[in-house]
Amino acid sequence: MPARNIITITTDFGVRDHFVGAMKGVILTINPEANLLDISHDVASYSVVDGAFTIAQAYPYFPPETVHLVVVDPGVGGERRPILVQAGRHCFVGPDNGVFSFIYEREERVTVRHITAAHYFLQPVSRTFHGRDVFSPIAAWLTKGIDPSNFGEPITDYARLARLNPTMESEHRAHGIVLKADKFGNLITNFSIAHFPQFVQPETPAFQLEIKGQQLTRLRKTYAEGAPGETFAIVGSSGYLEIVSNGAAASQALKAGSGDEIVLTFR
Amino acid sequence: MPARNIITITTDFGVRDHFVGAMKGVILTINPEANLLDISHDVASYSVVDGAFTIAQAYPYFPPETVHLVVVDPGVGGERRPILVQAGRHCFVGPDNGVFSFIYEREERVTVRHITAAHYFLQPVSRTFHGRDVFSPIAAWLTKGIDPSNFGEPITDYARLARLNPTMESEHRAHGIVLKADKFGNLITNFSIAHFPQFVQPETPAFQLEIKGQQLTRLRKTYAEGAPGETFAIVGSSGYLEIVSNGAAASQALKAGSGDEIVLTFR
Amino acid sequence: MPARNIITITTDFGVRDHFVGAMKGVILTINPEANLLDISHDVASYSVVDGAFTIAQAYPYFPPETVHLVVVDPGVGGERRPILVQAGRHCFVGPDNGVFSFIYEREERVTVRHITAAHYFLQPVSRTFHGRDVFSPIAAWLTKGIDPSNFGEPITDYARLARLNPTMESEHRAHGIVLKADKFGNLITNFSIAHFPQFVQPETPAFQLEIKGQQLTRLRKTYAEGAPGETFAIVGSSGYLEIVSNGAAASQALKAGSGDEIVLTFR
Repeated sequence: MPARNIITITTDFGVRDHFVGAMKGVILTINPEANLLDISHDVASYSVVDGAFTIAQAYPYFPPETVHLVVVDPGVGGERRPILVQAGRHCFVGPDNGVFSFIYEREERVTVRHITAAHYFLQPVSRTFHGRDVFSPIAAWLTKGIDPSNFGEPITDYARLARLNPTMESEHRAHGIVLKADKFGNLITNFSIAHFPQFVQPETPAFQLEIKGQQLTRLRKTYAEGAPGETFAIVGSSGYLEIVSNGAAASQALKAGSGDEIVLTFR
Repeated sequence: MPARNIITITTDFGVRDHFVGAMKGVILTINPEANLLDISHDVASYSVVDGAFTIAQAYPYFPPETVHLVVVDPGVGGERRPILVQAGRHCFVGPDNGVFSFIYEREERVTVRHITAAHYFLQPVSRTFHGRDVFSPIAAWLTKGIDPSNFGEPITDYARLARLNPTMESEHRAHGIVLKADKFGNLITNFSIAHFPQFVQPETPAFQLEIKGQQLTRLRKTYAEGAPGETFAIVGSSGYLEIVSNGAAASQALKAGSGDEIVLTFR
Repeated sequence: MPARNIITITTDFGVRDHFVGAMKGVILTINPEANLLDISHDVASYSVVDGAFTIAQAYPYFPPETVHLVVVDPGVGGERRPILVQAGRHCFVGPDNGVFSFIYEREERVTVRHITAAHYFLQPVSRTFHGRDVFSPIAAWLTKGIDPSNFGEPITDYARLARLNPTMESEHRAHGIVLKADKFGNLITNFSIAHFPQFVQPETPAFQLEIKGQQLTRLRKTYAEGAPGETFAIVGSSGYLEIVSNGAAASQALKAGSGDEIVLTFR
């Protein structure tokens, strides 16, 4: 089972400092055979929504038995619980602040445990760096074959983010948000194709996206189909509607970003 | 043959998003033994020239049989072909947009194949993320020992970048460009030592570099030899003439960057 | 001894260019089994202090026998020596410019060797990229089991950074500095808990930190305990006093950064 040694790491720690390096050292000291893969360390600082989206878009591509370590943890040292999530054939370790919300929604078999087995932690546990002292050791021990039940009891009152999904104002009108602006300035919305399948029909029905007082009515298949500088919608590789611009940043053109509201009207 | 498992990855995807993580997951699902090495994910957005230079400077140092995955792909979803390049003892996978131009020039034995074997792709193939759906699976299968001939037929009309090399205006005057400004603001030109060996002679002959209306006539051996803030030329570690400044950014001092023209005159 | 294959890499090369990729290739060509871990490539450009702090905070968490490659090397090509440091159960390779100062201070058994065995280098050695041509090969050969004594003779006059530790003006007043501002804008000082244990007593005695003309007198246990925007001190995960702000960047609030002076007065 070689995949048992794979640990992905997603944080908002950046790569300027020693934080990620210290975490990797802790893991390799426990399991020198661990195969560490960075997903991103540039999740927007303190943004649980951005962390939630990032891990949700990456984990399904990894092999079964992969352990996903996610540390976007503005409440570190406070009341929030450390948790271990078993969902589908993947394991997740991180804070109970909603960062695994998309996974709870997508996977059918979900078990969430409150991690309490402090004898697995790096001692003494600091008050500000549980990524190193709590979450990394648990991820490493998981890849050593320690059963999740050893780390703590199941809980059901775990945190979920609000506003993950659009709300229907009427049969023909929905309110959503921008989940994130990616590196290219593409605005990834929370209108998923699973919920709005008309955007992948051969003939897209008429629609309008309203964002920041501007209206968009064009859906194209690729970035290159747009006129230079034109702003339009596409079905993104993430399975969500995206607002993009050919060769430019839609986020700048529309002065829009994470959390901004979008109204979708359609027949 | 342990090197068979090495895959390097070079993209302009940045590390803020899930893109690179998803690619790594796809590869590890096909080959859990793959050894993934990031070259850079901060190639200038959409810059095929920058991607071409980056992979050209890194690949020669890797062991034979390494697979190099390069995704700088502004034309994704359009007409450009996915290709597999065998050159010397290395393999390259990416879009046919010129990003492998330096390799075509440097290696003697080059075979370029148009990748058409769609049953190796991640299905359904998105229109905007071939890095995940097309290129990563091909790279992974290569490290599993699938012969390149299984992925598509050889082609000879593959794309090459123009202006890779300087042009000679006369016997004593050449026109070149800045290939890139590196992190330190050093301006890497396309005057290579292979073509202009006089710069590594014990006695450098008199020369002048003209860039952005400014003239440089000094060649030094190390950054430290320059006076603080002085702008001068050195023979860079990449084998090209570089315009640098001791402890400062030449790119800022000269307000110059990628694509800017340089005129070299010499005896 | 699987840990023998672990090499960490810390540089100020950034990740925009080919530099780090070329180093990884050199290492894997010598030892295809090497397990390469990035600590950071965004050490502040040319900042030996920042590099010294970064590796000092990461290395203790790695398993014994790890090789730590550190290339923050503003004097490359000049007189500074390449060195190999054996300290405790770790090995370090890099320039003799003080970048290992914290390690000399912390570890009891320290042997520093001047690397002179040029037949291990990548030839020809460039004048500007010893990370690739000198330091990477030595790190790789170390993981192949070559004994450190083969690379050069011990030296005792190796470089140490000044101002690592605060100086006592009187029994109740000490002068220190900001070692670095981390990604979150937390100001990590050089007042270590080892030297100032009163900050981890159950009842912290009264104290005052003065920085940039501003006075701080509050010590809290976590970021979350501060009022929004309040600037205060905590004992950081690195074992040093840090000046932080809840949900904001103390570095911006105080307009302070690396090297700024701090005066600590206490009973």
